[in-house]
Amino acid sequence: MPQAKIAIIGLGLIGTSFGLNLTKNNKRNYTVVGYDIERRRERSAEKAGAIDKRSSSVKDAVTDANVVIIATPILTTKTIIDELKDYVHPDALVTDTGSTKTLFMEYATEILPTSVNIVGGHPMAGSDESGPDSANVQLFEGAAWALTPSPLASETSVKTLLALIEQTGAYPIFVDPKEHDQHVASVSHVPLLLSVALFRMVRDSNFWDDASVLAGPAFNEMTRLAKGEPEMGRGIIETNQKPLTDWLKRYRDELGIIIEGLEAGENIIGEVEESESEEDSSLRAVTGYEMLTSLLQQTRTERLMFDELPKGRQIPQTGDGGTPTFSDTMGQMLMGGYLYGRLKDRMQDLDRREEELKQRER
Amino acid sequence: MPQAKIAIIGLGLIGTSFGLNLTKNNKRNYTVVGYDIERRRERSAEKAGAIDKRSSSVKDAVTDANVVIIATPILTTKTIIDELKDYVHPDALVTDTGSTKTLFMEYATEILPTSVNIVGGHPMAGSDESGPDSANVQLFEGAAWALTPSPLASETSVKTLLALIEQTGAYPIFVDPKEHDQHVASVSHVPLLLSVALFRMVRDSNFWDDASVLAGPAFNEMTRLAKGEPEMGRGIIETNQKPLTDWLKRYRDELGIIIEGLEAGENIIGEVEESESEEDSSLRAVTGYEMLTSLLQQTRTERLMFDELPKGRQIPQTGDGGTPTFSDTMGQMLMGGYLYGRLKDRMQDLDRREEELKQRER
Repeated sequence: MPQAKIAIIGLGLIGTSFGLNLTKNNKRNYTVVGYDIERRRERSAEKAGAIDKRSSSVKDAVTDANVVIIATPILTTKTIIDELKDYVHPDALVTDTGSTKTLFMEYATEILPTSVNIVGGHPMAGSDESGPDSANVQLFEGAAWALTPSPLASETSVKTLLALIEQTGAYPIFVDPKEHDQHVASVSHVPLLLSVALFRMVRDSNFWDDASVLAGPAFNEMTRLAKGEPEMGRGIIETNQKPLTDWLKRYRDELGIIIEGLEAGENIIGEVEESESEEDSSLRAVTGYEMLTSLLQQTRTERLMFDELPKGRQIPQTGDGGTPTFSDTMGQMLMGGYLYGRLKDRMQDLDRREEELKQRER
Repeated sequence: MPQAKIAIIGLGLIGTSFGLNLTKNNKRNYTVVGYDIERRRERSAEKAGAIDKRSSSVKDAVTDANVVIIATPILTTKTIIDELKDYVHPDALVTDTGSTKTLFMEYATEILPTSVNIVGGHPMAGSDESGPDSANVQLFEGAAWALTPSPLASETSVKTLLALIEQTGAYPIFVDPKEHDQHVASVSHVPLLLSVALFRMVRDSNFWDDASVLAGPAFNEMTRLAKGEPEMGRGIIETNQKPLTDWLKRYRDELGIIIEGLEAGENIIGEVEESESEEDSSLRAVTGYEMLTSLLQQTRTERLMFDELPKGRQIPQTGDGGTPTFSDTMGQMLMGGYLYGRLKDRMQDLDRREEELKQRER
């Protein structure tokens, strides 16, 4: 019986770590091949056992592949799609691992044959280290893995990808590409830039030599993300400009509130409602310090609650009460559920585009 | 031979962890007694072996003590000093572990007899957990431990404290109290508030339910400090208001530069000097994205260099002039550009502010 073929394009930290998870399965009925523009990385990934075989080119890698995983920097994704479009199998599943999803989904659905099953992916895992030598089979354990299936992707192809991701210990999360980018801007891309700005501020100051001596775990941790690959940061910035700018401005406003509180200090900054009973409430003046203290208290409580949220929960449906289970979400997604409404527009768009093409070809 | 007596006032995370380090020494010639306003904490610390004996009051603890360690929340320090002033041994060494040093040093030197040896202390270690049950004998291993001896403290008393701190594996760093507060505002207190602001921003947004599902290690790490004790945050805010406000405003400016870069995007934002040789240089226009990419690159390089700095180095003597600061390089990069003008103003402004600060401190 012929074996299935999985091709990984890009053997950095993510591609190689994914490979390690794919090859560790000793009941597998697939071969994993790998390609990287740097031969050195290919050799490292092969040596680590993340791929069974090196490919000599993108063409060589994707030809006859049932699954193609693009794990290059985001800004390289377009080039890879251009390179593989003529060789990818018509029924193949094509996925990626980029930090933003809109660009990948738009470009892949535009360029690749409509028969190809496109399912964008983004594992919410990483490290400040990069390259195949930092790869780690546990990298995705317990992480969310965002998935943005094209409306045209077959149910089988989505299930295939889910089975591969399951082996990594990550939790698949279905999400619309634009919403994905909007959300990760807040929980992933803003944190990166905050980290960079913090390090720069202290490093940039005349106090660096002294302050750096006193820097402890808080500073190390809060500036760790600044060690990440600049190429990855660049990809994020260039493909998620608008949401990132909006969130950063919002963040600047949050800081403004804290600065106001600090400047007010012992002085009154506003009033809070104090209710002794439901009917009876009065206003109490608060100082800047009091406002900040209650802000610290509230945030702490909420932050501790966040730690308790169950892992692997799905994005809730709006309007709906109960938490949907994974199979509910899968079902809804595949049978005209919550993603469908948004995806339908794009599907109609694609249909129109195809129709136009056909007419032009006549 | 009578044993020396060490009294720890406040048996939270820091006091208890310090105690564990003091009692683990089996060649010791001292007894460790402990007091906390909460008896439950005293019992926990005793059970953990962090103290040899519980004291019934501050008076009981400090009477005949050779060393007094105040490890309460900063805002409680004044009360403790008031309570112990009539009972503290005239030759005792009094130290603390608070996150700011100016208030402690000013109050202790004002209130305590001049014969008492006052040496402020601040271990740059901690955890988002608190209380004696989270205490850990390795908490201070490899950490900086800032020391602010009063000019009246005897050499012997400072050496005694150094010997005790040595047992914890921390590195003592001598620093002026005002400079300490100025520096830790940047490397410790600003990070705390950035963490709080980040969590608040996402938690309070309409996107929380969705975004929190996608939150990964970056968000966890960058908001971890928001889990810290609000009482500690409050102490920091109230005793380090001015430096903290200044640094936060500066941080807001840093963010402003990033936001400008993002908004410029593919458009030209300034010019960089490109030198082929020392005599020959030309200006090249850069886009917002290019500016941000080189900012990411430079920051990454500097951040990696920071990891390589030797632990336990002391604060260098001022008088400087030598190495160009990071801001020089950034300035050169944007030389002649429109951003440079603004950057330069800001830098001159900051230089002026720093100069003023230094003069005020003299």
